[in-house]
Amino acid sequence: MFIKNAWYVACTPDEIANGPLGRTICGEKIAFYRDDEGKVAAVEDFCPHRGAPLSLGYVENGKLVCGYHGLAMNRDGKTASMPGQRVRAFPCVKPFAVIERYGFVWVWPGKAAEAREDLLPQCEWAESPDWAYGGGLYHINCDYRLMIDNLMDLTHETYVHSTSIGQKEIDEAAPETTVSGDEVITARYMENIQAPPFWQAAMKFNDLDPTAAVDRWQICRFSPPSHVMIDVGVALAGNGGFEAAPQFKASSRVIDFITPETETSHWYFWGMARNFKPSDVELTNTIREGQGKIFGEDLEMLERQQQNLSLWPERELLKLNIDAGGVQSRKIIDRLLAEEGNA
Amino acid sequence: MFIKNAWYVACTPDEIANGPLGRTICGEKIAFYRDDEGKVAAVEDFCPHRGAPLSLGYVENGKLVCGYHGLAMNRDGKTASMPGQRVRAFPCVKPFAVIERYGFVWVWPGKAAEAREDLLPQCEWAESPDWAYGGGLYHINCDYRLMIDNLMDLTHETYVHSTSIGQKEIDEAAPETTVSGDEVITARYMENIQAPPFWQAAMKFNDLDPTAAVDRWQICRFSPPSHVMIDVGVALAGNGGFEAAPQFKASSRVIDFITPETETSHWYFWGMARNFKPSDVELTNTIREGQGKIFGEDLEMLERQQQNLSLWPERELLKLNIDAGGVQSRKIIDRLLAEEGNA
Amino acid sequence: MFIKNAWYVACTPDEIANGPLGRTICGEKIAFYRDDEGKVAAVEDFCPHRGAPLSLGYVENGKLVCGYHGLAMNRDGKTASMPGQRVRAFPCVKPFAVIERYGFVWVWPGKAAEAREDLLPQCEWAESPDWAYGGGLYHINCDYRLMIDNLMDLTHETYVHSTSIGQKEIDEAAPETTVSGDEVITARYMENIQAPPFWQAAMKFNDLDPTAAVDRWQICRFSPPSHVMIDVGVALAGNGGFEAAPQFKASSRVIDFITPETETSHWYFWGMARNFKPSDVELTNTIREGQGKIFGEDLEMLERQQQNLSLWPERELLKLNIDAGGVQSRKIIDRLLAEEGNA
Repeated sequence: MFIKNAWYVACTPDEIANGPLGRTICGEKIAFYRDDEGKVAAVEDFCPHRGAPLSLGYVENGKLVCGYHGLAMNRDGKTASMPGQRVRAFPCVKPFAVIERYGFVWVWPGKAAEAREDLLPQCEWAESPDWAYGGGLYHINCDYRLMIDNLMDLTHETYVHSTSIGQKEIDEAAPETTVSGDEVITARYMENIQAPPFWQAAMKFNDLDPTAAVDRWQICRFSPPSHVMIDVGVALAGNGGFEAAPQFKASSRVIDFITPETETSHWYFWGMARNFKPSDVELTNTIREGQGKIFGEDLEMLERQQQNLSLWPERELLKLNIDAGGVQSRKIIDRLLAEEGNA
Repeated sequence: MFIKNAWYVACTPDEIANGPLGRTICGEKIAFYRDDEGKVAAVEDFCPHRGAPLSLGYVENGKLVCGYHGLAMNRDGKTASMPGQRVRAFPCVKPFAVIERYGFVWVWPGKAAEAREDLLPQCEWAESPDWAYGGGLYHINCDYRLMIDNLMDLTHETYVHSTSIGQKEIDEAAPETTVSGDEVITARYMENIQAPPFWQAAMKFNDLDPTAAVDRWQICRFSPPSHVMIDVGVALAGNGGFEAAPQFKASSRVIDFITPETETSHWYFWGMARNFKPSDVELTNTIREGQGKIFGEDLEMLERQQQNLSLWPERELLKLNIDAGGVQSRKIIDRLLAEEGNA
Repeated sequence: MFIKNAWYVACTPDEIANGPLGRTICGEKIAFYRDDEGKVAAVEDFCPHRGAPLSLGYVENGKLVCGYHGLAMNRDGKTASMPGQRVRAFPCVKPFAVIERYGFVWVWPGKAAEAREDLLPQCEWAESPDWAYGGGLYHINCDYRLMIDNLMDLTHETYVHSTSIGQKEIDEAAPETTVSGDEVITARYMENIQAPPFWQAAMKFNDLDPTAAVDRWQICRFSPPSHVMIDVGVALAGNGGFEAAPQFKASSRVIDFITPETETSHWYFWGMARNFKPSDVELTNTIREGQGKIFGEDLEMLERQQQNLSLWPERELLKLNIDAGGVQSRKIIDRLLAEEGNA
């Protein structure tokens, strides 16, 4: 069961630059492409003629043409034409509402007619010239909610990412979770500590002494259906932490768009947005490479956790204070599922 | 469900040259081998002693010897001998009727006692010195009937094989399908057109001007259980097309023996027979290589079509005029299945 | 169904030298590790916090620490601690009794409290300085009982190992099977024969003329749950065979510890113990390499036998005189299963 009436990241523009892309999202098998006006489009990945996947075809005159026998499909799921055929009575396939924004293609897996553009999240970091963004994509064989749990409880940094962003002080600072409407916020503050290697490197980039004592913060924000934005950073100790003036800190925002594929797999669009040195492309690449390596450390753990949960589906997991972020996020997901009639 | 009382191509002689071959055909797991008289033989691939596959054994004194404990199997499925044992009461395994002809080993998956040699197809191209043949084998993960559909509607050449044998004029020439007894014929004729690359090359081989206008034909003939023979070629325009005298044309016969493995996989024995320059072995190899490449282009489409049909088993596919060849062929298959009691 | 109240080989010490090992044994998913006192320990491979596999963690202060969020697990399956948490009410995971002996880690898949150290097999070859041992591990996708059958009927050597230890005379010497309590013994004696290649090489090592006539023996001993020890060797003909004085013979003991993983897969710990030249390490390695190659020849046969048995579960296999060793061993297994309430 997935929330269908919501926007998920489907792909990045480069993935449809050379032709259609077939991808399953929330259990829906979809062909994504760019039409002749440059607008992205998406229809069920099934040719009504003989069932071939439309994503194996090509785009011509703005239509998605089936690569088997040449049926040309409109963006509304109705057949536009087919050589030598009258197509008016051809059955339709499901169209999907898509929007290209913030450097992503977004899809609404529910009914296209009910898609509400105003529900797209606000991402000022993707539009303002003061910000830069770099990111990547992982396919992970686990329930997407395990990734939400992972990101809403950064305690795991101490263990999974011990050589980069983990440090013992994370364990020692209890996080606080608050819920505000459909948003869940889990925040953790560590004061007067040494920065771990990743942040020491970031301090150097910002001309700060990497050995200086710092205040560190992690502020994780979940919003439905499955977005997690995390403000992370360090400031020289005693300057206000998260609120410190820019010259005292190194900080950024971790961007996580988590797109379910099946009940036990998902697409993970990860990235980092920063509002310093936004035009330094080399820095963007360096950060992306570092983040990709760190975030890749979670994959085996998550996939093997899924295997255990599939093997022992009846076991109740613990819900500790550190798990409150994930627990509250799942409550919101469950409520929205119920509202869609998928309790 | 498969037609069991019919001959299918099981393998080529080279596949049993160095020992037995295990292959599943129409859901039957079979060990094929050549006995001491040089005659091909086939029995269920199951040793009655401990269930080991007989195809892992070897042939000795004309018996198929199990490679685990030395049980020697007769071609009739009765155990011939076993070291230190009386074998008279050993249970039998199923024997299969096999015939070697036309450069293939044929198997009758039904009861061996009911096999009728007279039902073997007539293949003059395989026996006459005026013809040469070259071919190959693909294993494809789709229902064998999707391959019949594919071959009985060559419209797909325009899309799947656009750089070799496809051309837009195929779409524009409506095919005609006729049924005669158990044979289905779908024919398409294109007049006064340019030959596509594959046929231009063939025209050069036959000392014809490859840029000259031609009449082109495709005459597909289905016969049960799953053979498709296709006359293809081009003749200089206005000389009678398919009926033109040899000096005006380049032509050949595509040979397709389609052997079901499971409900969603099959063995595809493809090849090309020609009645010009039959002793030119290098030409045979060149054609085989070109055909293998072209026919390989269908594999991904067919396998992904199968995945879609398995995902949406309830969806009805369209049956357009171009699909008539496949539709009629399936009707004959369904009738023969019903006659065998597998409606 | 597996005998749970028995000792199985779980792993060798090198497999837990660099951290925990996750391994499924008799259907139980288990994390093995060495604690701070150097004692081996084993608990269910499931962290009670969020279900992560504990085997992905590490050992610290003698505890197995979960690599996800730092829960520290005691060897009794109770949580020892977790940063920032009271753990008293945490649910327990299953602990397993383990013993390290004879160069192996042994596990009792049944209730740890009921484990009886006195049931561990006696292995003088592993403790006496007069003996040397070398061995290896194979993972095989077949029911572990097919491996017991294999080892309790060495007739297969003639076929599966024809170039090393097989010879036609094995077929001709009927084996004798006796049952004594829970032990099954299948013995075969061949007199006044030529030694096969493997034993000719062994004769050379022992300064015997490899072309001399020999008496050969194979004495296979099954004991529950799934251990098979085999005395094998040759002696110069007429000197008493198995009972001959050391200067007349080349002999050794094949060690087979067979550990079920699932119903259709197992871990096969194979090796060879010898009581000549016990300190010749190079000889140990040469024998291990040769044995590993020979025993690897069984894998394809066993896995494809399993595939056949899974395909035709209703078929009864034959139980010939040569199969008596396996048949009797299975009877003992069945009786012990029944005694455990798993008839």
